[in-house]
Amino acid sequence: MSDWNCKLVCTGCGAEYDASKAAVRCEKCGETLEVPFDGRGEIRKEEPFGGTLFERYREFFPYFEKNDALNMGEGFTPLLFMPRLAEETGAGEILIKNESVNPTWSFKDRGSAAGIRRALQLGYRKVGTLSTGNMAISMAAFANRAGLKAFILVNDHIDEEKLNPIAVYDPCLIKVEGDYAKLYDESLSIGERHGIYFVNSDEPFRIEGYRTLSFEVCEQLNFEVPDFVVVPTSAGGHFRGILKGFLDFKKAGLISKIPVMVCAQAVGCATINNAYGKGLDKIERTQNPDTIAHSIENAFPPSGNAVLRCLKEYGGKTVSVTDEELLEAQRTLCRNGLFVQPGSAASYAAVRKMGQQGMLKGNERIVCVTTSTGLKYTSILSRHKLVCHNTKLEELDDFIAGL
Amino acid sequence: MSDWNCKLVCTGCGAEYDASKAAVRCEKCGETLEVPFDGRGEIRKEEPFGGTLFERYREFFPYFEKNDALNMGEGFTPLLFMPRLAEETGAGEILIKNESVNPTWSFKDRGSAAGIRRALQLGYRKVGTLSTGNMAISMAAFANRAGLKAFILVNDHIDEEKLNPIAVYDPCLIKVEGDYAKLYDESLSIGERHGIYFVNSDEPFRIEGYRTLSFEVCEQLNFEVPDFVVVPTSAGGHFRGILKGFLDFKKAGLISKIPVMVCAQAVGCATINNAYGKGLDKIERTQNPDTIAHSIENAFPPSGNAVLRCLKEYGGKTVSVTDEELLEAQRTLCRNGLFVQPGSAASYAAVRKMGQQGMLKGNERIVCVTTSTGLKYTSILSRHKLVCHNTKLEELDDFIAGL
Repeated sequence: MSDWNCKLVCTGCGAEYDASKAAVRCEKCGETLEVPFDGRGEIRKEEPFGGTLFERYREFFPYFEKNDALNMGEGFTPLLFMPRLAEETGAGEILIKNESVNPTWSFKDRGSAAGIRRALQLGYRKVGTLSTGNMAISMAAFANRAGLKAFILVNDHIDEEKLNPIAVYDPCLIKVEGDYAKLYDESLSIGERHGIYFVNSDEPFRIEGYRTLSFEVCEQLNFEVPDFVVVPTSAGGHFRGILKGFLDFKKAGLISKIPVMVCAQAVGCATINNAYGKGLDKIERTQNPDTIAHSIENAFPPSGNAVLRCLKEYGGKTVSVTDEELLEAQRTLCRNGLFVQPGSAASYAAVRKMGQQGMLKGNERIVCVTTSTGLKYTSILSRHKLVCHNTKLEELDDFIAGL
Repeated sequence: MSDWNCKLVCTGCGAEYDASKAAVRCEKCGETLEVPFDGRGEIRKEEPFGGTLFERYREFFPYFEKNDALNMGEGFTPLLFMPRLAEETGAGEILIKNESVNPTWSFKDRGSAAGIRRALQLGYRKVGTLSTGNMAISMAAFANRAGLKAFILVNDHIDEEKLNPIAVYDPCLIKVEGDYAKLYDESLSIGERHGIYFVNSDEPFRIEGYRTLSFEVCEQLNFEVPDFVVVPTSAGGHFRGILKGFLDFKKAGLISKIPVMVCAQAVGCATINNAYGKGLDKIERTQNPDTIAHSIENAFPPSGNAVLRCLKEYGGKTVSVTDEELLEAQRTLCRNGLFVQPGSAASYAAVRKMGQQGMLKGNERIVCVTTSTGLKYTSILSRHKLVCHNTKLEELDDFIAGL
């Protein structure tokens, strides 16, 4: 950890913890911890193509030592101008931050890359996570890259199609029958007992890694901060990390304001949005969550209360969308060239809803984060009316003429 | 096409064609055409993260006008140092050029991006391709981005799991019963009759797009050209494009030599490698191709003869690998963090074979291209012995203790 001797700070009560030891949740109030930022940071532009993520933004990661051997090429994802989507919704401008082109094809890689570095720094040889898909693949891959053993806990109703793409990395993969929310708590105590560093959704350095999405957006927009950033939200860690990225860049004097953060959830599991709508300080567990968007189906998100505090303190918005709206958004994104998971389409579905509800004025610039590739969840495609014609080679010409 | 009035040149007989009209194959000898390069080109370094592919290398694409609205963020893929793989094979250094993080998760996107620009330049509103997977998804996506209608021809024994991820983009998707090699010829004449510009594997501007992989590798290695570049080879267009990239950079004075190009194929469909081994000038059609690696299973590759000429003229090598070697390479790459298709693993499997055959001295630098994500072909994972444990939440601690 070189000479960095920072504290970890509780997002709830502000209690401080020695960062030279593993700590994720506050021992006093139970809330999630974060890494404070001292405000000193410049971007180190490197050749070619910007360098690596942790070198370009190294001043924002003062606690990590240079280690290019861990690099998997995470980050530096495109920010795509989508004029047809802006027209469809009535927004001034829509840009898609396409996280599906990360090394394991989801946003999780930014966080895993940071979490793995943290585990190495603390001297662990084993890492773990609990996940329904994206984070499992990501942690298994990054652990392998670093030569660490990965323990991946999945719940027992995970889609079959998601299991083999985790198992192929050869982690210790365990399907656990029982309450997923309790599994989170259990993982932390198991980690302590068995020397496994769990890089779950709210591990403080995972959150630090997610900041890089915002850093990139600022650079890609020449430091003109967008009006809205819309994030499909499940456990809440991604939302927190993206917000913290803008806050830290502002603290460093690189931008002058932060965007309005929009928390996009599925109606069938809108744990955070429902609590915010009711004006609650704490989330209430969603009973019987029900959505096709499993990647954002967390009934009791570990960072739920932290996101509520963020929404209040910085004036964020919440938008919940139905499964049908998710499927429609998935189709629309495909027709614009982007195949994402239904959960990833929540950001664009939320913008469409904002348009329908008269929340858009036509002069705003909106960044929609799409979080993962549609290839990880193809069984959902049976919900679309997909067309494939059949013909014979010798009849092909007539067939096309007749279309 | 602005003031660019270049010719297309036959790679076989050297005949020239007017580039203001669509042309792909030579009317005289039947061989595939290419775009000549005049040797004038510099790299335009742009901020942030290198700019876009066609802007950074714009002087190597003098025939395209600036059009960022078509950009999908293609290219700029990581080049990963893989010390454990070098150790395992006895190579001096192995680097993986990971093409699975392109917008549709395969190398095809570089070529599709260029081919779509060519179609627009020629005034087409319809584009097409024939493909067994990767190219179909790529063309469907890029056509949508450009607002063009895509006609995708697939053969009727395509894996079911590959069909829906094409169909979801809503192209005109047609499964064609009949001889795949004849379908190639038929597609070109159908294209002429119905106003569809077919951007097949050997379309000259697709090849131009593939050059960008080599441009990036040169930059990523600070213009120290690797000794070998190993390419999983099917139709042959990718191989040609990568070689041409190095040749064009050399012509522009940016590098002083070119690498030895290695053509990696599956034993069950080693059309090019077999012909090269026999010293033939022309490929012979592979009867009954048989490999698990469908993405490199082209029995009569359109650029086969052109690749043979390249191998002879520039002293390339050919290495064929068995299905078992492909599966073993797929596993090994996963254990290093990279999940690729079996066909994509052909490059690393070939290097391992080169080591076994005493072709490596321990001081060479090798770039292995991995062409596409493993997520597109998960049914093959049944060929691996994958492990998933099962337990109950209350027994999890004991279970982990007992591992």
